[in-house]
Amino acid sequence: MADTNPSDNVVPLRGGSKKDASTAVERLQAVTAADMSDVNETILDRMQSPVALIPELAGHLISSGGKRLRPMLTLASAKLIGYEGKRHIGLATAVEFIHNATLLHDDVVDESTLRRGKKTANLIWGNQPTVLVGDFLFSRAFELMVGSDSLRVLKILSHASSVITEGEVLQLTTANDLSTTEEKYLEVITAKTAVLFAAACEVSGVIAEQNEDVISALEAYGRNLGIAFQLIDDALDYSSRQATMGKNVGDDFREGKITLPVILAYRRGDDDEREFWKRTMQAVRQQDGDLEHALAVLNKHGTLSATVERARHYGEMAKDALAIFPDNDAKSAMIDVVDFCIERAY
Amino acid sequence: MADTNPSDNVVPLRGGSKKDASTAVERLQAVTAADMSDVNETILDRMQSPVALIPELAGHLISSGGKRLRPMLTLASAKLIGYEGKRHIGLATAVEFIHNATLLHDDVVDESTLRRGKKTANLIWGNQPTVLVGDFLFSRAFELMVGSDSLRVLKILSHASSVITEGEVLQLTTANDLSTTEEKYLEVITAKTAVLFAAACEVSGVIAEQNEDVISALEAYGRNLGIAFQLIDDALDYSSRQATMGKNVGDDFREGKITLPVILAYRRGDDDEREFWKRTMQAVRQQDGDLEHALAVLNKHGTLSATVERARHYGEMAKDALAIFPDNDAKSAMIDVVDFCIERAY
Repeated sequence: MADTNPSDNVVPLRGGSKKDASTAVERLQAVTAADMSDVNETILDRMQSPVALIPELAGHLISSGGKRLRPMLTLASAKLIGYEGKRHIGLATAVEFIHNATLLHDDVVDESTLRRGKKTANLIWGNQPTVLVGDFLFSRAFELMVGSDSLRVLKILSHASSVITEGEVLQLTTANDLSTTEEKYLEVITAKTAVLFAAACEVSGVIAEQNEDVISALEAYGRNLGIAFQLIDDALDYSSRQATMGKNVGDDFREGKITLPVILAYRRGDDDEREFWKRTMQAVRQQDGDLEHALAVLNKHGTLSATVERARHYGEMAKDALAIFPDNDAKSAMIDVVDFCIERAY
Repeated sequence: MADTNPSDNVVPLRGGSKKDASTAVERLQAVTAADMSDVNETILDRMQSPVALIPELAGHLISSGGKRLRPMLTLASAKLIGYEGKRHIGLATAVEFIHNATLLHDDVVDESTLRRGKKTANLIWGNQPTVLVGDFLFSRAFELMVGSDSLRVLKILSHASSVITEGEVLQLTTANDLSTTEEKYLEVITAKTAVLFAAACEVSGVIAEQNEDVISALEAYGRNLGIAFQLIDDALDYSSRQATMGKNVGDDFREGKITLPVILAYRRGDDDEREFWKRTMQAVRQQDGDLEHALAVLNKHGTLSATVERARHYGEMAKDALAIFPDNDAKSAMIDVVDFCIERAY
């Protein structure tokens, strides 16, 4: 099947190998393993409810084999700065709940059918309980945050939640709009993705009562990593590697979601190509063979590799943000995981 | 038109008059007027966003002429106990935002088309931004709560949010289920409605640093008033008075939502009637004339007036909860508004 996939060889194989990348995540997992076991326990405990449908539906998503990258970042940040308390456990759980709440709502909003290789909750249980269980996880996240006893943490995470939803609405308003600039696109992905990565790291600095330089370094690491992560996600949506990750190739294309590969291709393209993008992404009048043609045009202008290069740029900034910290296991795992996030593209 | 409405005279006209009821709300409005003007300003300020669609969509609902009963309860409770600070303004706004977030999500979940006599946001803008703007209001509510600088307030309101969503999921699982007991129904309406009324009142006691007796009296007042309020709402769904309130008559019937009027009618009915309820509410196979027949059966067994009587019972408990407070304008307005909530049925 993979041989006939239209998106094969679109994202060039260059640099790093899959094996190295896996090792980076494994190293981050190893550094955070003891704490992550507490987080997993807290996740299971806090998604319970006497209303059986809630843990059933939430568990379908939460137990579906996500990497738990965001809570891992909270734990790794705490480790990086030698935090010795227990408040990062609840906060890492809250971060994962906020993320999962947005996934449930996204799947309803996008009418998705597949996530992490499994049927989506909205497909199995319908939109009604999926929206409500998203709200439940969101509320539970706030309950967990309140448990941190830090008003500053609460400010950071509640503000992050507002910004995430603003980013998602902004994304809706840019859908089908080929005049979307790269700057506007960066604003969208910063809000919808990077702000939660940033908050996930920053809160560990706050509970560990670090100085402002440390807290803002953690914030910058998370934010830049989040931007890189989303850039790669958007490149992967046009890559056959996507299929191995349990998602459909070309979802963004079919929805007319304007991401950087298309923004660049539209600018770099000729009149015929612009007409093609207008018909398929703006008017969303698509026919057989359009996705294949889109992939060929993206490839011709090298916009997928350009997107990966942009990601590499933000990845470097993420790594540099960690320069102020003394070397330790957590630091090197956090640096390596930046490369993992980028090399997912290969 | 009103003469031919099938639901005419179903809820018996007995006791109180509409005029008295309006006066009660006006009195509560008068007691809270100065503070409510600050709340209205805060609402407008905090629903703003650089993403124009957000205030546009949120404003459509928020400015649609709701009574703002919940924030009024926060303000009246503060007045009742002589609170002199300003923190109740943000909390009243947060309570209204939580309420409006759930309304937006409810309308998506129920595919509603009409609310407060206006087209719903989901009908105008679609489900996608409606779900997301609900999330936005929810997040903004938490930001406002954090501004109260009280972890206990945050605990109360974040827990209330969890319980509300649990109540709504529980309600989904009882839909079309005629074996739902009155106890289960009370559990649903307590969670989905009364807990927010309770929290709205309780938080004023907390920020005013009152003793536990006062705080729990405020909680009990709000909770019992909320139960009464929802019981009346559920009776009104089968009443022609509903039409004057900008809603459709018989929505619950059409959706197979099992509320107390039907729970009681199913229990009091004969075999033919039970078959009728099974076909219409359980299998949801409905035909012309079914709503009219349902109204006749509810009327025959007096289950709408029984529902109003139950509401009256909870209303009395709400009033009694206020007995510990010295007489003042706020107290008498809060007592009278209980009657207003019940006399909406007439």
